[in-house]
Amino acid sequence: MNKETLRKNLREIPDFPKPGILFYDVTTLFKNAECLQGLIDELYEMYKDKGITKVVGIESRGFILGGALAARLGAGFIMARKPGKLPAEVIEETYAKEYGTDTIQIHRDAIDENDVVLLHDDLLATGGTMAATHRLVKKCGAKQAYINFVIELKGLNGRKAFPEDVEVTTLLQL
Amino acid sequence: MNKETLRKNLREIPDFPKPGILFYDVTTLFKNAECLQGLIDELYEMYKDKGITKVVGIESRGFILGGALAARLGAGFIMARKPGKLPAEVIEETYAKEYGTDTIQIHRDAIDENDVVLLHDDLLATGGTMAATHRLVKKCGAKQAYINFVIELKGLNGRKAFPEDVEVTTLLQL
Repeated sequence: MNKETLRKNLREIPDFPKPGILFYDVTTLFKNAECLQGLIDELYEMYKDKGITKVVGIESRGFILGGALAARLGAGFIMARKPGKLPAEVIEETYAKEYGTDTIQIHRDAIDENDVVLLHDDLLATGGTMAATHRLVKKCGAKQAYINFVIELKGLNGRKAFPEDVEVTTLLQL
Repeated sequence: MNKETLRKNLREIPDFPKPGILFYDVTTLFKNAECLQGLIDELYEMYKDKGITKVVGIESRGFILGGALAARLGAGFIMARKPGKLPAEVIEETYAKEYGTDTIQIHRDAIDENDVVLLHDDLLATGGTMAATHRLVKKCGAKQAYINFVIELKGLNGRKAFPEDVEVTTLLQL
């Protein structure tokens, strides 16, 4: 997918969610049918030969391309969610945020040792939520795990949050 | 998609989120690659000739098949979200719940008078959130709007929440 097309269709919202933050709004990428198709096509090409059996999407924007990509790859789709949302037995990881901590959960039976997993979210900032989700996937015994984001905010050095041996891809670096 | 396969792969969780409620857990449908594929294939066949230009998914489980279906239909994807989540200018509808009220929003520029819209969520219970989202889509001037759920809880009569002239489909009735 052409980076300029992506960049052009990504909306910038100053001072959201709080003053001083420039928010990159992916809703305008997903709203545009050509962009949505282009994103899925590119991700499919990147991962179609990896033997992916499960795609994990992080709540909640990661569900959009995550679900689409799972269907396209012929894989299952797994939700990583905030506490209290998943109805069956969960495992969880708590991680540090700028202020305080946060927790992410997946169902205990979501992934097993036969799985090759692609973890997906829309945006890589500090990487805390994704790193915690990656630990959950490893705890389940997954054979292999890949990480993908649509957008990477390079200035925040989020890649440092992940183990060095994990392949991390991003489609647009800002 | 075979209804028995769907039914068999749908997990039942007693007493979630509170005692006395039997919760139908769609995570086990999405986790199963064949079910996920079967759902998307069936929805694609149902809507491929309707000229759908936008799929609206309701936060947050509606994002999963919603995003996949938008990509498959060559349509754009729009999020309907709870207040405070969408970064640009929104329109909203407030609706009655069992106790108190709730509000749902979409971006003001998400849909226009050229759009044929498919609204999707995983489960039809009382239909309040979907009915409110349908009103938002009509406010935006959409030419036509269809409604789909994976599961319909027939005992709750949720279809009564929608105008009579709207085509509502569900894949599994319980």
